[in-house]
Amino acid sequence: MAREPLPPLRDFPWHLDIPTRWGDHDAYGHVNNAVHYSVFETTIMRWLEIEHGLDTASGSVRCFTVENGCCYHAPLKHPATMRCGLRIDRLGTSSVRYALAIFIDESCVATGFVVDVFVSAADERPVSVPEEFRQAMGPLMR
Amino acid sequence: MAREPLPPLRDFPWHLDIPTRWGDHDAYGHVNNAVHYSVFETTIMRWLEIEHGLDTASGSVRCFTVENGCCYHAPLKHPATMRCGLRIDRLGTSSVRYALAIFIDESCVATGFVVDVFVSAADERPVSVPEEFRQAMGPLMR
Amino acid sequence: MAREPLPPLRDFPWHLDIPTRWGDHDAYGHVNNAVHYSVFETTIMRWLEIEHGLDTASGSVRCFTVENGCCYHAPLKHPATMRCGLRIDRLGTSSVRYALAIFIDESCVATGFVVDVFVSAADERPVSVPEEFRQAMGPLMR
Amino acid sequence: MAREPLPPLRDFPWHLDIPTRWGDHDAYGHVNNAVHYSVFETTIMRWLEIEHGLDTASGSVRCFTVENGCCYHAPLKHPATMRCGLRIDRLGTSSVRYALAIFIDESCVATGFVVDVFVSAADERPVSVPEEFRQAMGPLMR
Repeated sequence: MAREPLPPLRDFPWHLDIPTRWGDHDAYGHVNNAVHYSVFETTIMRWLEIEHGLDTASGSVRCFTVENGCCYHAPLKHPATMRCGLRIDRLGTSSVRYALAIFIDESCVATGFVVDVFVSAADERPVSVPEEFRQAMGPLMR
Repeated sequence: MAREPLPPLRDFPWHLDIPTRWGDHDAYGHVNNAVHYSVFETTIMRWLEIEHGLDTASGSVRCFTVENGCCYHAPLKHPATMRCGLRIDRLGTSSVRYALAIFIDESCVATGFVVDVFVSAADERPVSVPEEFRQAMGPLMR
Repeated sequence: MAREPLPPLRDFPWHLDIPTRWGDHDAYGHVNNAVHYSVFETTIMRWLEIEHGLDTASGSVRCFTVENGCCYHAPLKHPATMRCGLRIDRLGTSSVRYALAIFIDESCVATGFVVDVFVSAADERPVSVPEEFRQAMGPLMR
Repeated sequence: MAREPLPPLRDFPWHLDIPTRWGDHDAYGHVNNAVHYSVFETTIMRWLEIEHGLDTASGSVRCFTVENGCCYHAPLKHPATMRCGLRIDRLGTSSVRYALAIFIDESCVATGFVVDVFVSAADERPVSVPEEFRQAMGPLMR
């Protein structure tokens, strides 16, 4: 696992700092693996919503995650600030593949990806990525 | 704290078993205090929805929690089955006060309460507890 | 409920900003009630650990929550920054009672309290609040 | 995505039922994607601990997740009982790859995998999968 060299933070054009919470631990005393996905998702949605004012909840489209994955390179303990880097690796007709990584200080502790499909809010069927999202995504492309 | 004798399970007319999850721990290696509230809430809503077929999500009323509290009598560790007892201590015009307790085997590890107010789904203002809820609640009264 | 006037942020000598997470919602589309307790706890522990360097995990004492409670004054939706104010209302021999409130911008959406008892890490029995904690707590007293 | 036919429950030799919790939702009104990983992990650990009495927390070895992933085939809403199927697809010298799927009634809503590496509790370096784990795992192999 994780044989490739870990990416530096500068490989990710945007990042968000998310503090760990006291209850994030699992029975091994590490931040639970599932928390990483919450961090990925929160980072993506804040980038869309806060940075670009794109309405992902009540607008005409929604972004449904169809696949995600994560490699864990080092355990994480509370308290820490998780700096989550975000990049886009592929932008298709109706889907987008984000690459993400979590850093503690300069050290990469996890790498992952999320594939979102744009669907119509009305019938939840795939639609083309709207032009305003496409433009916002440009600077995040590899 | 907790100077009163702890209640036996038979003080609660209904109960639900909820298994702990691996990620429920906090940085002390105990099931996190916030999980207890999730257990309380899940118990109340399943009783309303599953036992009585009352529609609390898309129906004309919603149950908003306005206050809750919990006393912790013993730490809890994963894996365990949390048996959550439910009773109603007060049924007012538009509000209901539930008493709850969590048991591990026969031992009471936490006691708490939740006050829910019924509101209209349309404008989120308080309404009278609907008659079908009121009838369902009868057998849960102290 | 909540008939008393809601406290202003200046009633709390210290505060911490915690962003909501995408998965914090409940089936009503609000930030789940249990999240408020996670925010309270995270605020207390960060104040002890980060502000004062007090070791609450591997040191000789631990802070066990024996009781907590919360009143909810307005629903909360993601994305938002929860500003959590912290004050101490009572400092006893072995226990401390924190008062907390969550603000969105200037508006108070929840008020609550947490009672922690100091216990020995060795046998988990109550001990006097150590002098270094007591000194740190002074400026937080009402 | 998900072009392969979805697996039936009988492809998984063991399963665990886990109820959704009221707070499991995300801002789209679905069970949050991160919850699926909590379900995967809880299923694996209960199978090891409860079914086989294997000590994964205080014993001489620990199972660290190094990689996991999930494909989402249908959204999930509370209240529901998530039936999580478990199988082993590969058992190496020090690692094991679990295949998992979540079913609602007979319908598969998510498929995923978890790769765990066995490490020494003393120094957290990889060790061979202990013989008692290896024997327990036999009947779960594809």
